[in-house]
Amino acid sequence: MYERILKNLSRHIHLSPGEQELFTSCLKRRRLRRKQFLLQSGDISRYECFVDEGCLRTYGIDKKGQEHTFMFACEDWWTGDMYSYLTGQPSQFDIEALEDSSLLLLNKQQMDKLYEQIPQLNKFFRILLQNAYISMQRRINENLMLSAEERYNTFLTRYPQLENRIPLKHIASYVGITPESLSRIRNHRK
Amino acid sequence: MYERILKNLSRHIHLSPGEQELFTSCLKRRRLRRKQFLLQSGDISRYECFVDEGCLRTYGIDKKGQEHTFMFACEDWWTGDMYSYLTGQPSQFDIEALEDSSLLLLNKQQMDKLYEQIPQLNKFFRILLQNAYISMQRRINENLMLSAEERYNTFLTRYPQLENRIPLKHIASYVGITPESLSRIRNHRK
Repeated sequence: MYERILKNLSRHIHLSPGEQELFTSCLKRRRLRRKQFLLQSGDISRYECFVDEGCLRTYGIDKKGQEHTFMFACEDWWTGDMYSYLTGQPSQFDIEALEDSSLLLLNKQQMDKLYEQIPQLNKFFRILLQNAYISMQRRINENLMLSAEERYNTFLTRYPQLENRIPLKHIASYVGITPESLSRIRNHRK
Repeated sequence: MYERILKNLSRHIHLSPGEQELFTSCLKRRRLRRKQFLLQSGDISRYECFVDEGCLRTYGIDKKGQEHTFMFACEDWWTGDMYSYLTGQPSQFDIEALEDSSLLLLNKQQMDKLYEQIPQLNKFFRILLQNAYISMQRRINENLMLSAEERYNTFLTRYPQLENRIPLKHIASYVGITPESLSRIRNHRK
């Protein structure tokens, strides 16, 4: 039941059986059907969310009503709106399930208590945040410096399992181009 | 001599005098004159860098030779290229001193040892990374969703002390517009 998340933790820290039990006793499972929302803009993000099954998309909507995809998260990824979670401010993002999904949630009060009870979790989330940070740093850099085709290539590298799993329009919105332009790039390669 | 960095640490953790001494004994001071580089693209970023005095700018250069400013760091900020530091890959960024600056550096081997010797540092850098992460998350969001004028406003909010301290061209390159467009936005306000 908690095999995937414990394996995820074990990449960076070793918890005793007692610590594992304490940790998993704090988890709350949430299931979403395709097109349901984990978070809607205006809500406050109250959880660290581990994707146990399925796939989610985080996006924002600009003033013209245009969607911009910020990230995807499938099995073994953590998701949520860190800004809202940490500051208690309403989120500017929507997080929707692209497939039927199952998540494991930890709320902020529990997390703060768990950091005290299992100090190693500081190390785990420090490493997780380092990786998230460098991934985002690359993403800013890509948006500033790379062509559309190069940005599409980085999408393929970052999410090798997603190309045929999610609709083209969402990939286009992640890359920052129209679906038509993305189709042209794809056709050009065949 | 280490007052500023110890105060910076004390925001999130409390070190004993012995731990403070161990920590500061690992620091290496590096002074840069204006226009010198802390890091040049192609180099590997080997340090966590605390800005004790001065101001630095991190930027990349695209294939057309255009500079794109990623971030600024003045007193009390940490800087460096996290991606290069963590992966050992050459950096794609340059980090230059905009003023005569003084930095305190910790290399990766020392950091890894310090995490073992002072486990609280995991907590400190976890919190630092959380803040860096949400700041960068906002920056991506801004680039995708905000107008040039709104992006300039966020620059002013994020770096309230820098508007009159650094050249307009660097602010323009942070906002992602030409210096001429930035002048127009500024004049429009007077």
